[in-house]
Amino acid sequence: MKRGEELKQQLQRTIDNKTKPLGALGRLEEIAQQIGLIQHTIKPVITRPHIVVFAGDHGIAKTGLVNAYPQEVTAQMVLNFVYGGAAINVFCRQNQLTLKVVDAGVNFDFTSNPIDVIDAKIGYGTKNYLNESAMTITEAEQAIEKGRSIVRQLAADGCNCIGFGEMGIGNTSSATLIMSAITGLPVVEFTGRGAGLNDDQLQQKIDTLQQVYDKHALNTLCQQPIDLLSRVGGFEIAMMAGAYLEAVHLNMIVLVDGFIATAAMLIANEIFRVTKQQSSVPGWTTLIDHCIFAHISHEAGHEKILRHLGVTPLLHLSMRLGEGTGAALAMPMIQAAVNFLNEMASFESAGISNKE
Amino acid sequence: MKRGEELKQQLQRTIDNKTKPLGALGRLEEIAQQIGLIQHTIKPVITRPHIVVFAGDHGIAKTGLVNAYPQEVTAQMVLNFVYGGAAINVFCRQNQLTLKVVDAGVNFDFTSNPIDVIDAKIGYGTKNYLNESAMTITEAEQAIEKGRSIVRQLAADGCNCIGFGEMGIGNTSSATLIMSAITGLPVVEFTGRGAGLNDDQLQQKIDTLQQVYDKHALNTLCQQPIDLLSRVGGFEIAMMAGAYLEAVHLNMIVLVDGFIATAAMLIANEIFRVTKQQSSVPGWTTLIDHCIFAHISHEAGHEKILRHLGVTPLLHLSMRLGEGTGAALAMPMIQAAVNFLNEMASFESAGISNKE
Repeated sequence: MKRGEELKQQLQRTIDNKTKPLGALGRLEEIAQQIGLIQHTIKPVITRPHIVVFAGDHGIAKTGLVNAYPQEVTAQMVLNFVYGGAAINVFCRQNQLTLKVVDAGVNFDFTSNPIDVIDAKIGYGTKNYLNESAMTITEAEQAIEKGRSIVRQLAADGCNCIGFGEMGIGNTSSATLIMSAITGLPVVEFTGRGAGLNDDQLQQKIDTLQQVYDKHALNTLCQQPIDLLSRVGGFEIAMMAGAYLEAVHLNMIVLVDGFIATAAMLIANEIFRVTKQQSSVPGWTTLIDHCIFAHISHEAGHEKILRHLGVTPLLHLSMRLGEGTGAALAMPMIQAAVNFLNEMASFESAGISNKE
Repeated sequence: MKRGEELKQQLQRTIDNKTKPLGALGRLEEIAQQIGLIQHTIKPVITRPHIVVFAGDHGIAKTGLVNAYPQEVTAQMVLNFVYGGAAINVFCRQNQLTLKVVDAGVNFDFTSNPIDVIDAKIGYGTKNYLNESAMTITEAEQAIEKGRSIVRQLAADGCNCIGFGEMGIGNTSSATLIMSAITGLPVVEFTGRGAGLNDDQLQQKIDTLQQVYDKHALNTLCQQPIDLLSRVGGFEIAMMAGAYLEAVHLNMIVLVDGFIATAAMLIANEIFRVTKQQSSVPGWTTLIDHCIFAHISHEAGHEKILRHLGVTPLLHLSMRLGEGTGAALAMPMIQAAVNFLNEMASFESAGISNKE
């Protein structure tokens, strides 16, 4: 029997011997299996869990064609994160998660203030992809490498579990274009109301994104993730893609948040594939196999992309906030999966009669 | 403007001024509203949250016609709760919930052991309702009053938030019959595999329960909850019904767990209705309005009853364990709803530009 298969069966036996009917913990049993396989053990642990929020600005947002809020809100929200007033701060405090905020490319200079933001700025926002590429290939590669190095540092500091979040006015547009290019499905399938567009604005967003899609011939880039990033990506999306790649490489527990985080995961998954990276878990072939999908966002396209990928999210709370809030709220479920595996009594140890 | 309407609008304004797009916290916003209305405040708090597990045995379980596990497992699992090895123990420890285990009517004498079980025993299991009524009217009333007094004591000790769980081999059958009687829908609609019946056993369970339904003419008892309890109830279900009534009367936050907990809630809701009790929240007319539905169980009938009631559960984890495990896992979501309402910055306080 292969090593991976043996561990899998050992995990299943351990789960099945817990004092509960077979399968009665549902999704938590699947998560326990997945984490056991990632950590190569039947006694997994979660250490120093983090939420890392990547922030970046988008040139397109200056046009107002795709966004309900002005571009300045990206920087204002980064400051809100730093001062502890955002939803992600509340949920991180509650669930004892360490929050790191990364300036991947916000159109604001944070360095003059003595505030706690990781400076990884690639630029002061991307260029407007209606006219030109959002970033250069070099910038895309720099962002990915920066994302990798941030995660490497967190792992060196003892963290083995990360949920990735984002902030960037206009970034549902970038995510929509990436999903459309990679899946081959029409732009309109993934275009939603973002932070709150009305019907007319939604139609304008669809028309604008279709124009961008055609201009950059995104249909030809489905297997060229770096090129795709440079055309229509965002600095926060590119950096998050690098972060996923490193976290999976280091066998960390990885939580995917919502719509934009899923687009970044798709980019990472394509890079994983085209660069022929190997999973450390026997039998797993994609980066997606390593990911835990925290929640299903209310942003229209998220359900479609998750269904397309054949993955099942943990939470269904009709949220559409980003910031990693879905991942932060899912963390207690991940912890519960690990805890039941480690702490529950077995039928034997508790002296309980099994099924007749 | 009426008092209730004013508070409702004040809550909505507070939620809408938080630094997030309108409605972006989805279900958490609804929960925050609900809890604010229950506590008559825009600054709700959760104090000393509990899970209370009611355990009882069922005469029918001795026949083996409806159950996969033998009756002894009820008592064995109660001891497992006491020694801390069950799933509910793990989740309560993780989420800092106090667990209370109540012997509502287990076929075992716990009093000889110095263990931490609340002794509220009505009898050593119910009678077999294939032959006679499960309990007397007096026993049903005693159980309800006992449930009320247990909750009254917890509230006096400072608890304002409870999730109710249960343990009782055979109790999905009792729950099925109660749901069928109250909704008027056929028994087969709500009959599931419980702790793990195979296809033949499931058919046997359906046939048995149909026989019980006909024998006791349950179709005539839809508006007589005490009589219904005495015919086909369980001591743990009756006691939990009393507990719901008192918790709602005391304006506590009430979490409904899975299939059996929902059946007990239905009984409580009928008692609330037929005894013409009033909600303290203006505009609310049923006990159901006060309840938070923690999760949707994988037990087949649960989705049907929740849909019938028009309520939306918080978690979808394909669990079917009982013990209050769904409620315990939902508790961090309830806490998150309260926390965002109290702790998030407003657009004004954070100096953030609102929608253009």
